[in-house]
Amino acid sequence: MPEVNPSAIRAVLFDTFGTVVDWRSGIAAAVRETGLAVDPLAFADAWRARYQPSMEPIRSGVRAYVPLDRLHRENLAATLTEFGVDLPDPELERLNSGWERLPPWPDSVPGVERLRQRYIVGPLSNANTALLLRMAKHTGLSWDVIIGSDLTQAYKPRPEAYVKTAELLRLQPGEVLLAAAHNADLHAARAAGLATAFVARPTEHGPHQQLDLSPAEDWDVACDDIEQLAGALGC
Amino acid sequence: MPEVNPSAIRAVLFDTFGTVVDWRSGIAAAVRETGLAVDPLAFADAWRARYQPSMEPIRSGVRAYVPLDRLHRENLAATLTEFGVDLPDPELERLNSGWERLPPWPDSVPGVERLRQRYIVGPLSNANTALLLRMAKHTGLSWDVIIGSDLTQAYKPRPEAYVKTAELLRLQPGEVLLAAAHNADLHAARAAGLATAFVARPTEHGPHQQLDLSPAEDWDVACDDIEQLAGALGC
Repeated sequence: MPEVNPSAIRAVLFDTFGTVVDWRSGIAAAVRETGLAVDPLAFADAWRARYQPSMEPIRSGVRAYVPLDRLHRENLAATLTEFGVDLPDPELERLNSGWERLPPWPDSVPGVERLRQRYIVGPLSNANTALLLRMAKHTGLSWDVIIGSDLTQAYKPRPEAYVKTAELLRLQPGEVLLAAAHNADLHAARAAGLATAFVARPTEHGPHQQLDLSPAEDWDVACDDIEQLAGALGC
Repeated sequence: MPEVNPSAIRAVLFDTFGTVVDWRSGIAAAVRETGLAVDPLAFADAWRARYQPSMEPIRSGVRAYVPLDRLHRENLAATLTEFGVDLPDPELERLNSGWERLPPWPDSVPGVERLRQRYIVGPLSNANTALLLRMAKHTGLSWDVIIGSDLTQAYKPRPEAYVKTAELLRLQPGEVLLAAAHNADLHAARAAGLATAFVARPTEHGPHQQLDLSPAEDWDVACDDIEQLAGALGC
């Protein structure tokens, strides 16, 4: 595995859902709060299963960009129908905002804090800025800067999502490292010229996870958590 | 003076040049470093004097938006000519990046830290995101979010600069408070629906400052520094 040269890296940016925060536990907890007669984890999985497909028409240009907040809301309505349950509007909005109250993995806050001593640190997520901001305030994460998908108007893995983020930070793609628990995200980031770090999150999808258990390519860094990533990057 | 209701405010955003950082001392120091045979403070004043006029064609729609980095660079070239001096390119770029290395006022970092316990805190500046990010890293300021003028594509006091910033944060204008040392900025912010706080910076322009020594209107808060502002807002 090639060693990344930390001196070439200026910014370390993170995929968030799954990599920094545990969406499955967090959404299940938000579902539980509603009192809906559903299996909270199954509901969380079903809601999340609509995430990638809902971005496809936007990636392909069939639909204009709308923020992830809105896609989450549309996907929630569909998931409620799928489970044959209903929620009045204020509770539906409250549940939709569950994506802003996801718990960080135990290493996320201290790891990000260490990385900030040396690098520009922020998310590089499909979430919009307002969502990422509220998530950070809730978890106690301190980012240096938040470039949400609403600012690039592009959903990963579209190359613009990576390249425009680097541009807004006035950096070359090679000065930016993407840290993610998802090989497909890293693949697209590398194709756009970014450095890459795989952070293993083997229980993101629960105890029987099959995907993304290990690095699928020779990413610049491969590690088990964000504290380890900080160490690998000289922090 | 009316008391602002802290419970209505979700975000406290700051004008930066003059309000959070001391541009005059910082730019004079950067000029001194170049070894140019000029009075550093006079050069800083002359460079800054071109700041407002250089945004006018963009505000009025005669010129498309360009980031403040570039206006600073154009204004620097004109100021060098005005002083009859010259700088080779790498040193000129280094001097231009002096705007990223401005010292904070003594109360800025601790005051912002206190406000972050209760509010979303960030800049609302004419600077672009990349400049504000580097300034924050240099000063040790921690913002929750940075919405530079490149993201709204508008220069204050255009109403879009205030309103689009609130929109990107998914807030109503009345949920945002602008803190600034400049009455004209606060006037425009109030017209756009924001709450307002005057922070006195009586030496921003040096010992003989005439303008903005005191609040010109009944702003929601008037205070002498950012620590006092934090106290007035219940932090």
